[in-house]
Amino acid sequence: MKKIKIKVPATVANMVCGFDILGMAIHEPYDEMELKLLDSPEIIIKHEDRFGLSEDPSNNVAGVVLQHIQQHLKLTTGFEVTIRKHIKPGSGLGSSAASAAGAAFGANALLGNILSKEEMVHFAMFGEELASGVRHADNIAPCIYGGITLVKSSSPIDIIPLNTPDLFVAAVHPQVEVKTSDARQILKKNILLKDAIEQWGNIAGLVTGILKNDIPLIGRSLNDVIIEPVRSILIPKFEEIKAKSLKMGALGGGISGSGPSIFMLTERKQTAQDIARMMKSVYDDIEVESLIYVSKINPVGIEIVEKEY
Amino acid sequence: MKKIKIKVPATVANMVCGFDILGMAIHEPYDEMELKLLDSPEIIIKHEDRFGLSEDPSNNVAGVVLQHIQQHLKLTTGFEVTIRKHIKPGSGLGSSAASAAGAAFGANALLGNILSKEEMVHFAMFGEELASGVRHADNIAPCIYGGITLVKSSSPIDIIPLNTPDLFVAAVHPQVEVKTSDARQILKKNILLKDAIEQWGNIAGLVTGILKNDIPLIGRSLNDVIIEPVRSILIPKFEEIKAKSLKMGALGGGISGSGPSIFMLTERKQTAQDIARMMKSVYDDIEVESLIYVSKINPVGIEIVEKEY
Repeated sequence: MKKIKIKVPATVANMVCGFDILGMAIHEPYDEMELKLLDSPEIIIKHEDRFGLSEDPSNNVAGVVLQHIQQHLKLTTGFEVTIRKHIKPGSGLGSSAASAAGAAFGANALLGNILSKEEMVHFAMFGEELASGVRHADNIAPCIYGGITLVKSSSPIDIIPLNTPDLFVAAVHPQVEVKTSDARQILKKNILLKDAIEQWGNIAGLVTGILKNDIPLIGRSLNDVIIEPVRSILIPKFEEIKAKSLKMGALGGGISGSGPSIFMLTERKQTAQDIARMMKSVYDDIEVESLIYVSKINPVGIEIVEKEY
Repeated sequence: MKKIKIKVPATVANMVCGFDILGMAIHEPYDEMELKLLDSPEIIIKHEDRFGLSEDPSNNVAGVVLQHIQQHLKLTTGFEVTIRKHIKPGSGLGSSAASAAGAAFGANALLGNILSKEEMVHFAMFGEELASGVRHADNIAPCIYGGITLVKSSSPIDIIPLNTPDLFVAAVHPQVEVKTSDARQILKKNILLKDAIEQWGNIAGLVTGILKNDIPLIGRSLNDVIIEPVRSILIPKFEEIKAKSLKMGALGGGISGSGPSIFMLTERKQTAQDIARMMKSVYDDIEVESLIYVSKINPVGIEIVEKEY
């Protein structure tokens, strides 16, 4: 029986100023997924974790991705998927994207790599649609491509892999709930042109910094005058953590995806570790449990751990 | 007597989606400027052209730039400047920026290169302020740095030189008046967040295309959903010229600066020449006089033609 085991990494969407267009893969946390090709056209989902996610394929992120692949390719075969999720749903670290991207990646490998990366993104977006109602690719793209990706457009899909600067990421996931749909709803539909101009200057600066490996330019481009001022209200202690991180030497950072996780980029590992500890202690002080992660930007994305085919 | 003769090129600000942040230097048209260092602290401006620009230093773009340099550096010397302007004022091809940047560049050369490029931009922006009321650097920066530049911020000045893709530029200047101040006033102060997201995806794509020399990516990023739909109304035949240019093989293009000039980028010289002729004939048909220019993107910016010092 053909099967594959993969590690599917967490991802940080938006990267401060690149709302809905930029994302990066990190190493920690990651989900473990095992996919088997079945002779019959069933889709079986098993969750070996404790997040209470539905195992009904039509109501499971990985399930709907596989259903779409199956239908589109008119497969007579099916898939059994076992998911050990470590990226908590609702963390803002691309938990649903990991299930979706992992399903598309795993199925593609089992079918003999018949899909392009853009096609994998296309199918994985059905999973995001189930999870949040929006077919966005800003977490899926870095998960599949690795490194930092630009989603220039998600319809038609136009993804530009950028680069992987040699930087560390400190992230904290405070155990408070921010629903992606709520985080979208509080955004203003109208923004000031002058703010948009400042934002696109920062985006152009960030993209240039990433491509030229210009670390100071990355640092001074990590400013968001549009989304962060609104969304950060939903995240307790956001301002304090950001201010302390910058003081401790972070290049910059902000909300990961729609939150509540917060991430910071640093040049040195030690700085990232110190910042992660500080983040935890800020939440300890207000008796909010939190999980912290330190890793480098992940240049690869999904990795194959084991395969039989 | 120390003197310098320079060629100061036209520039195309905005580059479609990069409103207020991107600009590029071209070769044609260009102004000729001659600057002499005087023993006394006077500033003398002579215009050897027929645009009726004031020769009173306080009311002349080059004049105010030199006044600011003189004051800031507490100079006991002065400048005599002779300007043969070929970039028509009000063309949208960076006419005022050329006078301003040329003055700063020429003075700096005569003073022994004591200013950085960013300082030249700083002083030149006083000329833009006189011309349009706004201290913007999107034309000045490419004039001084050459190639395509990103003005990440004009206060503080943060300019990132990008790259010079091997492309041709066809430009037409129809002889209709569009004042920069009018072109600014008709813009909406509020824009839709969803449009801004599409715009910054295009900007990120354009910057990536420029830096990676990815010509198709440059082409599919040259879309402006915010400024062009409003400003193009001021320019007769804009839609027709754009549509025909794309059909003839242009990568893309749009309004140069605040107009009325229109520019198109092409891979081949022949295509640019054909497009320029088409542009002229469209305006001929409605009995609007026009000037056309074909050149490559100018990697150098201002050039020294002659110097004695």
